[in-house]
Amino acid sequence: MNDPTTPVIRITSRSHFSAAHRLHAEGRDEAWNRETFGKCNNPHGHGHTYELEVTVEGPIAPETGWVMDFKDLKQIVAERIVKQCDCRNLNSDVPFLAGIVPTAENLAVRFWEQLEGAIPGARLVRVALHETEQNQAIYTGGR
Amino acid sequence: MNDPTTPVIRITSRSHFSAAHRLHAEGRDEAWNRETFGKCNNPHGHGHTYELEVTVEGPIAPETGWVMDFKDLKQIVAERIVKQCDCRNLNSDVPFLAGIVPTAENLAVRFWEQLEGAIPGARLVRVALHETEQNQAIYTGGR
Amino acid sequence: MNDPTTPVIRITSRSHFSAAHRLHAEGRDEAWNRETFGKCNNPHGHGHTYELEVTVEGPIAPETGWVMDFKDLKQIVAERIVKQCDCRNLNSDVPFLAGIVPTAENLAVRFWEQLEGAIPGARLVRVALHETEQNQAIYTGGR
Amino acid sequence: MNDPTTPVIRITSRSHFSAAHRLHAEGRDEAWNRETFGKCNNPHGHGHTYELEVTVEGPIAPETGWVMDFKDLKQIVAERIVKQCDCRNLNSDVPFLAGIVPTAENLAVRFWEQLEGAIPGARLVRVALHETEQNQAIYTGGR
Amino acid sequence: MNDPTTPVIRITSRSHFSAAHRLHAEGRDEAWNRETFGKCNNPHGHGHTYELEVTVEGPIAPETGWVMDFKDLKQIVAERIVKQCDCRNLNSDVPFLAGIVPTAENLAVRFWEQLEGAIPGARLVRVALHETEQNQAIYTGGR
Amino acid sequence: MNDPTTPVIRITSRSHFSAAHRLHAEGRDEAWNRETFGKCNNPHGHGHTYELEVTVEGPIAPETGWVMDFKDLKQIVAERIVKQCDCRNLNSDVPFLAGIVPTAENLAVRFWEQLEGAIPGARLVRVALHETEQNQAIYTGGR
Repeated sequence: MNDPTTPVIRITSRSHFSAAHRLHAEGRDEAWNRETFGKCNNPHGHGHTYELEVTVEGPIAPETGWVMDFKDLKQIVAERIVKQCDCRNLNSDVPFLAGIVPTAENLAVRFWEQLEGAIPGARLVRVALHETEQNQAIYTGGR
Repeated sequence: MNDPTTPVIRITSRSHFSAAHRLHAEGRDEAWNRETFGKCNNPHGHGHTYELEVTVEGPIAPETGWVMDFKDLKQIVAERIVKQCDCRNLNSDVPFLAGIVPTAENLAVRFWEQLEGAIPGARLVRVALHETEQNQAIYTGGR
Repeated sequence: MNDPTTPVIRITSRSHFSAAHRLHAEGRDEAWNRETFGKCNNPHGHGHTYELEVTVEGPIAPETGWVMDFKDLKQIVAERIVKQCDCRNLNSDVPFLAGIVPTAENLAVRFWEQLEGAIPGARLVRVALHETEQNQAIYTGGR
Repeated sequence: MNDPTTPVIRITSRSHFSAAHRLHAEGRDEAWNRETFGKCNNPHGHGHTYELEVTVEGPIAPETGWVMDFKDLKQIVAERIVKQCDCRNLNSDVPFLAGIVPTAENLAVRFWEQLEGAIPGARLVRVALHETEQNQAIYTGGR
Repeated sequence: MNDPTTPVIRITSRSHFSAAHRLHAEGRDEAWNRETFGKCNNPHGHGHTYELEVTVEGPIAPETGWVMDFKDLKQIVAERIVKQCDCRNLNSDVPFLAGIVPTAENLAVRFWEQLEGAIPGARLVRVALHETEQNQAIYTGGR
Repeated sequence: MNDPTTPVIRITSRSHFSAAHRLHAEGRDEAWNRETFGKCNNPHGHGHTYELEVTVEGPIAPETGWVMDFKDLKQIVAERIVKQCDCRNLNSDVPFLAGIVPTAENLAVRFWEQLEGAIPGARLVRVALHETEQNQAIYTGGR
């Protein structure tokens, strides 16, 4: 981003994965969990067809005209997130999700951590995760 | 449908529910199940945000101008299907799904059976179930 | 459709219009209307961004490779329906809707009547009208 | 937001309501209104199936893993906006909309005012209102 | 389909591909082509992000609970259509499209021919091709 | 924006156009282009049904209640972009796209330049261009 005349732009890659989860805090008892999470605490879990949008920002490379190849961004998201989460149980099957209640919010943060620093030539700026058509979490790296 | 001048029309109600499932045939061993269902046989399950379309057909009632109130159709689908499946595990938690592999196809047939004969003044003609944006099963009652 | 080797195919044109309506049967009193239509009987009306799908069927013309130009179908739907209904009140402003309760079902039938016989070289086979993402009426001309 | 290691995240809840409206400025005469608002000034009104997205921001609560329960956010939006606007005429039936031309822009601002300060544990950051698939207004509280 | 108690069901697989095309009939002169196809006859072509829905019908296999694996259906469509059309010019680059004006209608028929008889255990019943959100062709094999 | 009590709001207009393009850098040889752009370098091009979202920001005018008429914004986008790109080849047919590789990123920047300063009473703040359901570029004017 040294050349001040180069446009800086964002690109978004959208993926899907299908996974089970259960909202349950390990450190609390059953009564608290049922009270807090209601139907989402169902012992055998439920699931979602998750929609994941990953957005990165960078200068447009003069020769190619892109920030990076959409194909490469999709591939990085597939390797680091989709292949590990698709057809999985997010409470038990995904190492990088260990130790959290798998809410949309916590998933978005962990997905951010999986991707940050892993995208050559572009900067991660936004992870949006849709659980349903109604519910979405958006993380932009803030604390 | 006695009056031959009355238009006969279809109405569709669209709902969603979020559920876990695992493709696994109880009568077969683990090797067969893994070989047949692949990732979808994952022991801890996965899940979907299911989209369900229920279509009924009937004559337009002359005074109201409808086949039936959309609200009533939605309510019947909610009582008989959505409330029983939402935030559930379809392999273990739903009595009317007992004894099947919970594929989209088998779910559509059982949903049909839950609804057939339960919709006053209209005839069930189509149940469509989307697991993802790519995969859909459609049952119209045929054998 | 004389040449039995010519494929017969359907094409669908999708349009939108924004209109107000009120579910109210003129021949019945206020109490009956409130009881029957509930919130949809609200005296000042409510409205929808309607989505309309019109499907016609015909043989593929050998030289052009189409049933008819999508542009022409869209234009006929625009002239006969969209321009007359968009930004209108369906209870009071559209002559061809006079005398009906403007339910999705009745609208679909009247739209069918507006289009039938008006599409050169193709046969009207389906009118689908979405009031919302959840509610849809589909008319195929049956009585 | 005291703990600087806690991620701060946004969640969005999406709802729908169906309402009538008419673009008409009470303080101006008919000619000005017709000239300014065109078809949207139609005396009997028109309407939309509105899509409303409400976004709030807050720290992820360590025990629950969420900013707030999606269900609670949806409920607040339902109580304060959807139930009051659904199946209504926005010019005449909704007290908190009195005195405005009910454009998408003015609706978004009034919806913001209905919600601001009413969401425990999170800060309202964005209200987006879609009238159609083509037209959308987005308010983030700025003046 | 020998067992008359087995439900017969349909499944749909949805795919996308991005291609260029030009509406132009080789056997006619430039004037006729311009007059007939208008903007779509533009000499350098235009293009679409095509959405393709392929539907097959068959009995539910008792052990697996499916007509066929969604994954297998998707793979067949990918091999026979998507990989050959994606990032291609439909007028010049796809052998099985030679000799036609690449309208949505003609594409749907050729796609049908590519798939018919190639899907083990199920019968092809519907090919739907969307050029845009407004325009769609649907072929069910009729002549 | 002089009155500090006037809300400042954004409105978005969404349009579509269908165009062909080929990713190819004129200044580099065939081998480099094939290596860099892969399938997207196909000599005869491919295409997309592009979805374009244009967002502007401004104060709500007190009398009308809008930033500007949605109709006017749509018209400006139609004149300056959609009519020039629809049914065109973006490599050869659109003067304001000369000299670039027509990636989504470069298109978004040129569309920004076509619109900046051309929208009375509002400030351009965002151009988003979708090539497919998966790939999107977003430009907000930054360098």
